[in-house]
Amino acid sequence: MKEIDFWFSIGSTYSYLSIMRLDDVARAEGVSFRWRPFNVRPIMIEMENRPFIGKPAKAAYMWRDIERRAAMYGIPAKLPAPYPLEELEFANRVAVIGADEGWCEDYVHATYVRWFQQGEPAGVEPNLTGSLQDIDQDAERVIAHARSPEIGAALEEVTEEAKALGIFGSPTYVVDGELFWGDDRLEDAVRWRRTGSLTARGAQASA
Amino acid sequence: MKEIDFWFSIGSTYSYLSIMRLDDVARAEGVSFRWRPFNVRPIMIEMENRPFIGKPAKAAYMWRDIERRAAMYGIPAKLPAPYPLEELEFANRVAVIGADEGWCEDYVHATYVRWFQQGEPAGVEPNLTGSLQDIDQDAERVIAHARSPEIGAALEEVTEEAKALGIFGSPTYVVDGELFWGDDRLEDAVRWRRTGSLTARGAQASA
Repeated sequence: MKEIDFWFSIGSTYSYLSIMRLDDVARAEGVSFRWRPFNVRPIMIEMENRPFIGKPAKAAYMWRDIERRAAMYGIPAKLPAPYPLEELEFANRVAVIGADEGWCEDYVHATYVRWFQQGEPAGVEPNLTGSLQDIDQDAERVIAHARSPEIGAALEEVTEEAKALGIFGSPTYVVDGELFWGDDRLEDAVRWRRTGSLTARGAQASA
Repeated sequence: MKEIDFWFSIGSTYSYLSIMRLDDVARAEGVSFRWRPFNVRPIMIEMENRPFIGKPAKAAYMWRDIERRAAMYGIPAKLPAPYPLEELEFANRVAVIGADEGWCEDYVHATYVRWFQQGEPAGVEPNLTGSLQDIDQDAERVIAHARSPEIGAALEEVTEEAKALGIFGSPTYVVDGELFWGDDRLEDAVRWRRTGSLTARGAQASA
């Protein structure tokens, strides 16, 4: 079965739920995911989309909603996690290297565990070196490589690709050109992958 | 079983899904809902929250997501519906009268059917008179009453009540002080009503 593209930015809060449960969902549902890191920040800035900054009621709700749903999925969480990330871009530069070298999922998982369970912001020390060491990568080499203009350009390139697909937030699942935004649309994306529809019968393609 | 408070503003797009399926959910799950109209607009303005205006990718996604989910629930929809509503406040003034007189749910259902199935914006003619006639109310009397300062003040009062609860968007379900925002949190609200938790066991209260 064709893969589901899992577009995400380290820095997104709700992405934590997806990152922690994607492997279980893949096994249970017999689907696979391609991890596609991108930089959501310039897309948010261009849209003047500040989902939580200056919106205390919405931010309080977001943390409570994540807390309840993490418990529902059996995912540990120490909330609120430090937010927003100062070095969101750098965290995702590292993920881009991981995607190229085959350890993206492991790194993203490790950096989110440190961020959401131990209170260490992703993209800065001690999280950066720690999460690379957690997955047996040479932290010094990876961090130096992540600073290079080449990796900066690679992150910009995938971000343009995300934008061209119509992506405006993280996480976004993409199945045959259909976008499913949010951890709470993961089940919709899986259903679409299987049947090309969300209807109960599952046989009828939506217009 | 205690009721679930269903807070909504006519004018919200995702609320259409809740409004159309709430009666079925109530019957299937053995729960009941108290319909609480309020005016989400001043709350959104205060937060500088413009979810779709100036955000074409997000707006396009919203309509497609509603289209897919409406099909999933078997709800007809002619999309995109006219948006945003010019007379959002007036539409909700009428709903406040309905809540007082016992026909709120019927009116809201009727006005959304005209808005989302026939392309008539809610809160203005021909939708206003049409939806009141659909539910056998004296349109002239209700519309005159809705123009009164008394009803304007009543809508402001419930809006303050919503804000005090931490409500920032429509629809929001409230169960024992827990907020569940969005049509896609209706199932969470029902589960919370039954068990005080979202965990699988359902017996353990969340912190």
